[in-house]
Amino acid sequence: MLPSKSAEFENLGSTVEAEVVINGTTIFERKTYSLKQYHFHTPAEHLIDAQFYPMGVHFVNIASDGSIFVLAALFELSLTGTNANLLAPLSAPLHAITKQGSSTTTGPLSFSNITNFFNIVSLFKYIGSLTTPPCTDGVTFLVADTFLPISPKAFSEFKSVLKFNARYVQNAPGEENLIEVAAGQLPK
Amino acid sequence: MLPSKSAEFENLGSTVEAEVVINGTTIFERKTYSLKQYHFHTPAEHLIDAQFYPMGVHFVNIASDGSIFVLAALFELSLTGTNANLLAPLSAPLHAITKQGSSTTTGPLSFSNITNFFNIVSLFKYIGSLTTPPCTDGVTFLVADTFLPISPKAFSEFKSVLKFNARYVQNAPGEENLIEVAAGQLPK
Repeated sequence: MLPSKSAEFENLGSTVEAEVVINGTTIFERKTYSLKQYHFHTPAEHLIDAQFYPMGVHFVNIASDGSIFVLAALFELSLTGTNANLLAPLSAPLHAITKQGSSTTTGPLSFSNITNFFNIVSLFKYIGSLTTPPCTDGVTFLVADTFLPISPKAFSEFKSVLKFNARYVQNAPGEENLIEVAAGQLPK
Repeated sequence: MLPSKSAEFENLGSTVEAEVVINGTTIFERKTYSLKQYHFHTPAEHLIDAQFYPMGVHFVNIASDGSIFVLAALFELSLTGTNANLLAPLSAPLHAITKQGSSTTTGPLSFSNITNFFNIVSLFKYIGSLTTPPCTDGVTFLVADTFLPISPKAFSEFKSVLKFNARYVQNAPGEENLIEVAAGQLPK
């Protein structure tokens, strides 16, 4: 991922998304992907060791053949009030997009910290689906095993704009889909 | 609700529950209910204005005819590190029940603060179901519109023991059940 000058920052109703103007690229499994956008979920959409986390970020990367991989990280509340560098440039613009459908432009963004983060951490990998419609299958998820810090104040600000926007957690990869399990138990 | 001397405090796997030794009673809609137990969910199982909250507490009250009402409150993170009085006597015993199936006994509990809290706040009321099996229907829920404070530190402690133990949020009362909606859309 390369640095980007600025981004269109939108409240889509389903999430708050930064549409990246100058794409950075990532080589993953010998294919080149462009960073398309990144967005947030409150709470995060992955559990780790059965615990939930207050917020998550998804970096959506697309290759020229349409392949998608999502680089994900989970936030944990910091006891010292610190925030991941990723959040600082979004704090002010967040207040400009409290309404669904609204958008603004961020100031200069730098991805150097988050790039370093993903280069250092270990990643959980599985093949899943996009967590918002059309929930496209065959998407590779890479989830960091290390948390990014968010202060209770920043968490409260993000949550008040994003609302609850997490898909409920699916079964573990390879297990039967929860909806299908439940559907099979409904009275005919 | 009257004060109680102490309680059996158990990790049931599904939640952490205080089994109340000396029941207090509450008169609700001209019927007398006894406080049976109270337990916690991380995150809370109710959304308010579409936002989720990091933890919730359910006081389960049962009448002699088997009627159940649940008095619920949601916790919001405090920016000042304060905790609702309810949590202090549970903090030490919590560390004794980190394993599923373990239990301990709490020190003296007082319900005077939480009783005052429920007497002052406004309550959302609806008829729902228990949120853990057997998910009994016909349960009255009364949910406080005001939040109890929890510090990030206490939240982290509770979450590490309770894990993710919330049923996913159902549709609004009167709407079709989410599982039934989803099941109807599955390919035959």
